[in-house]
Formats: sequence, structure tokens, C-alpha cells
Amino acid sequence: MLSPRPAAPASGPKVVALGGGHGLYASLSALRTVTDDLTAVVTVADDGGSSGRLRRELGVLPPGDLRMALAALCGDDEWGQTWSEVVQHRFRSEGDLHGHAVGNLLIVALWELLEDPVVGLEWVGRLLGAHGRVLPMASVPLDIQAEVELDGTVTTVRGQVACALTPGRVRSISLVPSDPPACPQAIEAIEAADWVVFGPGSWFTSVLPHLKVPGLARALHETSARRLVILNLAPQAGETDGFSPERHLEVLREHAPALVVDAVIADGGVVADPKALEKAAWSMGGRVVLADVAAPDGSVRHDGPRLATVLDEIFREKR
Amino acid sequence: MLSPRPAAPASGPKVVALGGGHGLYASLSALRTVTDDLTAVVTVADDGGSSGRLRRELGVLPPGDLRMALAALCGDDEWGQTWSEVVQHRFRSEGDLHGHAVGNLLIVALWELLEDPVVGLEWVGRLLGAHGRVLPMASVPLDIQAEVELDGTVTTVRGQVACALTPGRVRSISLVPSDPPACPQAIEAIEAADWVVFGPGSWFTSVLPHLKVPGLARALHETSARRLVILNLAPQAGETDGFSPERHLEVLREHAPALVVDAVIADGGVVADPKALEKAAWSMGGRVVLADVAAPDGSVRHDGPRLATVLDEIFREKR
Repeated sequence: MLSPRPAAPASGPKVVALGGGHGLYASLSALRTVTDDLTAVVTVADDGGSSGRLRRELGVLPPGDLRMALAALCGDDEWGQTWSEVVQHRFRSEGDLHGHAVGNLLIVALWELLEDPVVGLEWVGRLLGAHGRVLPMASVPLDIQAEVELDGTVTTVRGQVACALTPGRVRSISLVPSDPPACPQAIEAIEAADWVVFGPGSWFTSVLPHLKVPGLARALHETSARRLVILNLAPQAGETDGFSPERHLEVLREHAPALVVDAVIADGGVVADPKALEKAAWSMGGRVVLADVAAPDGSVRHDGPRLATVLDEIFREKR
Repeated sequence: MLSPRPAAPASGPKVVALGGGHGLYASLSALRTVTDDLTAVVTVADDGGSSGRLRRELGVLPPGDLRMALAALCGDDEWGQTWSEVVQHRFRSEGDLHGHAVGNLLIVALWELLEDPVVGLEWVGRLLGAHGRVLPMASVPLDIQAEVELDGTVTTVRGQVACALTPGRVRSISLVPSDPPACPQAIEAIEAADWVVFGPGSWFTSVLPHLKVPGLARALHETSARRLVILNLAPQAGETDGFSPERHLEVLREHAPALVVDAVIADGGVVADPKALEKAAWSMGGRVVLADVAAPDGSVRHDGPRLATVLDEIFREKR
């Protein structure tokens, strides 16, 4: 017996959510209430903070985005809640451990012991009683490299932190290495999915990188799944400064010109030019769903229940 | 539901095992097969390695001896075995994490989150499916201080590592602070016990310190439980260099002159002078049980099943 409790039989559509960081946390928090068959495919290009240090010190995949995705899926009972708090806990000190998230250390230890990233993540998922599966998008650590325009000059910036914080305008991203091996289980999940969900999240550093892993990009283009994009509620200082909702879609199209998108969720309150957004969505094959999905407290984050309602409606229409 | 599985109803005598480190690991490995009602009361004076660093960096109890005791009690199934390997796993690198045991970090995180050492240890126990309970002997970190004789001069050495490695002859130990608060649950367990087990282990730094925590010492003297001493298989370089089995008992008596001991287990192969050992045991009120308890591979460690057989016989006689 590996799990404290047997998993409930899956119901709802097979959904694969792509992304990283807080954006993926938001989509998973909504999706977990809409389906029991949920897989997160998570970026492994972080080079900052606890993840960046672990990657440099131990030569492992950066675990932070994987940890956050697992925490988003944790069980509702005291067991799941407590272990989720433990894995999300960060040490605060004036010493070596400062800033390390406990879950990052736990994931890395399981990787060192079990020598398989996917199996290691399964064990953390079982610990948390996770409502879904979390997979890395690639089997090796990646670096994001961005073409950045600043004062009329185009330069190359390398590293997720550098790309996210660049004062210049990001034009496109690529990966180093440029042809990383995709996680086989992630490819299988995308091939078998009913829906694939892109975003929300840091557009260049969390949402687009999946399309630059060749094996994953192929599966994302060839799958019979419908594709859904959840747009951000605001541009992100640095990497998408001044980006309109439609510009987000245009950038996605520039990175995957042949990708068909079926639906785009945007918050009605942040779309200044609905026609322009609809045009951008149409050009990728999809329609725009304007809905009230922002948190009611005025913060720039998605409201889980509101987003879940919209997702559920879209998934039901297409069944 | 806190535990993956409900605990089996307790059977066998109520046993409290005192100690730390590898010695306590050995006694717990045997005791867990003899009784279902087992509590470890563990020293919290370590100042070396991963524990020492955590104690200095985060101001917490040193977790290492507690972690080892929990690992000794882990469940037999794949769940318990895997999490036990995880908590015992140590990072190896050329960086900041080198040498840290994952379980130490996990215990400390639970302490920071739950703000109660005993509750935090219970959660790790549940994670491991532990066959018993692990408690700290005191609620605050302690330092061991030793009176050491070297070339005819007596000096004071402070710190567990320094005491264990001193080239001098340790004469006695004390604690800093000298009147630490005992863990209340440890006192309760000793008061309710049928048997209290001292050793094996580092005599001055793992076995005797419990007798220097006033609240614990009082409970150890006043309990109606029988008291059993498991002697080491060999002197320990540094702290008990050249000590005969009977000298171990004499030192115990010097640190707790009024303590009655009911039985002393010693390995027949390492007792050079059985009469002297019997005399030392008699002077504390007890008898010597000579038995074949060393591992058959010739290493200086107790054999779990052999020790368990002897313990079970002794416990049955006294019921």
C-alpha cells in the first residue's frame, strides 16, 4: 500500500495543465474541483532562489515549481493540509538554510534516493494526498534564453530570473539545451488528454517554455485534446510590461504558429479592446470567453471558484 | 484522520527506552519486536554535525537523535521503509546542504510550524508508521559538560562532541543549564512504565544525561517500573576508553547513587570478570543476565533478534 487512502475513481475530463509558479497554482486550484483526472506539466527552468541553489549545488531539476503544483493539489483533510504547509514552509535564518522550502529539499532527497524524477514526485503526491499528478516538462534542468530589445538594440539574456527582470522588451524565448528530452509521461498525458490548459502565469518563463521542448511541442500540436488558454489579469513588470491581452496571444502564436487554440478565458474587467482580443483568438482557431474570474479583493490573481465555474462550463459544452 | 492506518491495540509491557544515537537505535530495534507499547526518551545535547548546525542556525532542539529513534521504529511496509530512508538520507555536496539529514530538516520544519516539539515528532512518527513514540528528554537544547582528568589535572570540557572525543578520562558529567525543564510527556511515560531501559550507547553523552535532568531523574527514581541496563559491547574510544563492563555500572551509580537497577544485560563474550560485574550489579540491587547479544558478524553492535529474545525472557519473568 503506497497511499494512505485509495484514490477515488476518476471522473470528469482528462485535463493537462501547463505552466509554473503562482499561475499554475491558480489554474490547478480551480481545475482540481472540476475534474478528478488532472495532470500538471511543469517548467524546470527556474534558476533563482531555493530551486536555483539546489540545482547548482546538487545538479538536480529545480524543484520549486513542482512543489507548488503539488501543494495546489493537496488533500482537504488535516493530513493533506498539514503536509502541504510543511512542504511550503521556508526556513528563515541568517545561515545556510535561509530561504529553502522544505518541500524542495524533500523532493530532491526522493530524487537522490529513487533515481527517477517522476517516481519521486509520485511519493510526494501520495504524502499530500494529491488530487492529481505532477510531472516535469523535461528530464533535464533547462535554461531560458530571451531575445530582448532595449533602446533599439537586441541582446540575448540567459536564465529565468534575468529574463523575468529584464528592463528590456522580451521578443522571444528559446531553451538551453535547445533539444531537451521531454518527460515521456508528460507526452503520454498530453496525447491522452481531453483538454490542455495553457496559463495563467509568467508568459515567457512559465507558459511558453513547454512549446520549446520538441517532444512536448509535437504532442501539444498533434493531440486530439482541445486547447484552452487562460490569460493573465495584468501584464507582468519586466517580461510582459505593457502587454495587452491580445499581445499575449500573438506572442503565443509567434512561438507556435501552427497551434490551434479552442478557447481563451479572459477577465472582462481587464480587456480594453474586446474586438482585438477576439481577432487574435480567431486567428488561432478559437473563441474568447469573457468572464468575471478575478479575485473579488482587487488583487491581481484568479479566484479559484469563479475560474472553476467557467472551466466547468467550457468543458461541459465540448463533451 | 492523522495516521494512514489506525494503530494496533497495544500489547506487551509498557517500555520506556532512554538513550540516543546508534545505541538507542539498537535497543529500539529489538524492543519494537517485544512490545507494542514503546516510548523512547531521547537526549537533546548533541552539538555536532547536522544537528549542531541546525541548533545554532535556528535555535531549535538538536533533532538528530530523535530522527534516528523514529527511523528505528518505522513501519515494515513499503510506505514506512521508504519514508524512513528519506528521513535518514543525507545530502552530499560541496555546498551548504552537505551533511544535513533530510529528517532533521523535516522535524525542524514541523517544530517551526506546529510550535510544539512533541506534536511535531508525532507527525513524523505518523509519516513513518512508527511502532512507538519518540520524545525529547528536555524541552530546551542542552550542553553536556564533563569533568575530565588528563595527566593528573582535572579540567572541564563542554559540548557533546568535545566530551566524546576528549583524550582525557571522563569522571563525571553535568548539564548546562543544570536545571532544564523535563519533557512532561516523558515524565508521564516513565511514571506509567513497566520497564525502563538504559543503554546501550555512548555512556556519558547518551545514557547518563537523562539522570541529570532533575524532573526526569525524580521520575526514574520514583517510578514503580523495573529498571534494566543494557551494557555496551566495548569501551568507546575517548569517553569510556578502557572501561570494563563493571566500570560502566559504577559510573552509573556515581551519577545516581539511589537508583535501583533490576537487571543488567551483558554479552558473555566481552565480560572478562563475571564476579566483578555481578558485584557491581548487586550493589545497585540487580542481577546480571549474560547472553549472546552481539551481532554474529563480529562488528561491535547488538544483534536485534538476539537482544529481543533476551529482553522478552526478562520481561516475561517479571510480569
